[in-house]
Amino acid sequence: MGEDLFRTENEFVQWLQALAAHAHKHERVRPLSLEKGVKLGIGDDAALVAVQSGHELILTTDMSVEDVHFSRRLHPPEAVGHRALARSLSDVAAMGGVPRYMLVSLAISKEVRRDWVSGFYRGMLALGRRFGVRLVGGDTALVPGRTFIDVLVAGEVPRDKALRRSGARTGDQIFVSGRLGLSALGLRLLQSRRGSPRPPAKAAAREAVRVHLYPEPQCALGRFLSERRMASALMDLSDGLSTDLSRLCAASGVGARLWAAKIPGPKLPEAADSLQLALHGGEDYQLLFTVPQRKVSRLPLKFQGRPLYHVGEIDASKAIKLAMPEGNVQTLEPAGWDCFRRRTN
Amino acid sequence: MGEDLFRTENEFVQWLQALAAHAHKHERVRPLSLEKGVKLGIGDDAALVAVQSGHELILTTDMSVEDVHFSRRLHPPEAVGHRALARSLSDVAAMGGVPRYMLVSLAISKEVRRDWVSGFYRGMLALGRRFGVRLVGGDTALVPGRTFIDVLVAGEVPRDKALRRSGARTGDQIFVSGRLGLSALGLRLLQSRRGSPRPPAKAAAREAVRVHLYPEPQCALGRFLSERRMASALMDLSDGLSTDLSRLCAASGVGARLWAAKIPGPKLPEAADSLQLALHGGEDYQLLFTVPQRKVSRLPLKFQGRPLYHVGEIDASKAIKLAMPEGNVQTLEPAGWDCFRRRTN
Repeated sequence: MGEDLFRTENEFVQWLQALAAHAHKHERVRPLSLEKGVKLGIGDDAALVAVQSGHELILTTDMSVEDVHFSRRLHPPEAVGHRALARSLSDVAAMGGVPRYMLVSLAISKEVRRDWVSGFYRGMLALGRRFGVRLVGGDTALVPGRTFIDVLVAGEVPRDKALRRSGARTGDQIFVSGRLGLSALGLRLLQSRRGSPRPPAKAAAREAVRVHLYPEPQCALGRFLSERRMASALMDLSDGLSTDLSRLCAASGVGARLWAAKIPGPKLPEAADSLQLALHGGEDYQLLFTVPQRKVSRLPLKFQGRPLYHVGEIDASKAIKLAMPEGNVQTLEPAGWDCFRRRTN
Repeated sequence: MGEDLFRTENEFVQWLQALAAHAHKHERVRPLSLEKGVKLGIGDDAALVAVQSGHELILTTDMSVEDVHFSRRLHPPEAVGHRALARSLSDVAAMGGVPRYMLVSLAISKEVRRDWVSGFYRGMLALGRRFGVRLVGGDTALVPGRTFIDVLVAGEVPRDKALRRSGARTGDQIFVSGRLGLSALGLRLLQSRRGSPRPPAKAAAREAVRVHLYPEPQCALGRFLSERRMASALMDLSDGLSTDLSRLCAASGVGARLWAAKIPGPKLPEAADSLQLALHGGEDYQLLFTVPQRKVSRLPLKFQGRPLYHVGEIDASKAIKLAMPEGNVQTLEPAGWDCFRRRTN
């Protein structure tokens, strides 16, 4: 290691406190209730926060492990920080809640330098600031081997308003909140261009790389669906549509039929396998939700300017089927990300 | 790896749900409010829990990294699970709160087998059960290299009753909740006896090994001190008295004087350096607290049958001093665990 990361924990904590304070410095005045929410932040034994009365607490943790979830060759430190937090924010979105606080556990590889740690926190804190999420604690260690990150996000949802995976019923219509497979395509583009610091020339390719490096959690849509009671079931697409829809169906005790022609995949010559990317590519962090037939007419065609895609319907079978444009129907096996499944590639 | 750990995430989640249900099976009937507290457990996008009205939420995360915090050679998997949770429970104790829920992120080395994972969760769930703490979620990954654990514990404390590190004032008396240096001695004994499956012959040595492998978080004492408003400052001893007291003093803007003769170290011939172990050995998870002079007479000599040790007093200096039995006074430098400090051993 070229330079000492930090000499003591105390030095690290003070550095991080200053960084976190700076991240929130230029904000417009925040609602007092939120400001008051943080009773005690980084530096004591634990964080102490308030939960609004009439609300339930959402807790979610997500790990990001070097060489599993990210690579120091392909992902800038800002993107590693952004992605690590985005995974947890997306889980809160998937409950229909509002994220409030984060705790970050960071096992820093002895191979990285302080500017990597700095970039990591900058990326994470910038995303946190946009969503009103404050860093209130965590844990740190210096380790041999790979860098390891675990992010805890605590959020709130009004009592009995949280949306689960298990509410889908036969006849409900299936929607996704955006184009799928972009992140998987973006990763492929990054891998093929390894070593080149320049972004791809085509706007569509740049968009795919941006979605991979800086995915956008869909918290506003999740909240909209829970507040209006529009969705019967909701989850986020972290591991690919085929895998995540099979989880939603298993939790709800139903099956589903997807219409291949309606599934929005990437639009690029490089993405000849656009449908496969959209079905099995993970890490888009769009929302997957079901809407009872009688409520479909009340669902807007677009949310915050971006279309919602109607991709299929729930049925009483126990399988996921894919209806092809030619008229034939295939059984769709989950082929997205599963940390225990043996990879064939 | 001799056998597949789990074939799919789904298989793992179902296995873990069954294990967690089993851990709480034989309990006496639990308070309804606590049972009702868990709205949604393992298997959805996030956990959903209730926080009692009039209470603040305590959040703490602690990492346990293989070859940093534990070794597969020295620590049985049950002890790894117990210790990983004990660290976070101790943080909640150090705020004067009651732990309620845990989320466990586990990056499982490809080198371990399912029986290691099973032992790990058994050890963790057994400790959780004793403290009324439920496993409500987490994250899992299979990784090359070392096993990595991050435990989040959420707890509650009545509003404005939490005890911080920063409340110590000149003249306050310093106490610790039990014998110190036992965990460091236990580790030394385990290292010297590596390869021997038999416990040490002497009861005192067995006790040191037990404290190292299965430390007991002091939640009841923490709660007692906060409810009775006995302590002006409170923290747990995870990194050694010299390091942790210096943190408490820094947070409070004070100094301290410790009386060497009053510091309870290990009582074993192997522990010729008993005072050094007690001053700098970490991972005892006893509590360190300060009591205003006028309240000292109300502090019990023993709590739940175990003595509380009066080891020094807070003063207006900015240093930590150690008064030796011979009468001379040394400056005490923090020499416990600091993840960034360069080791000399």
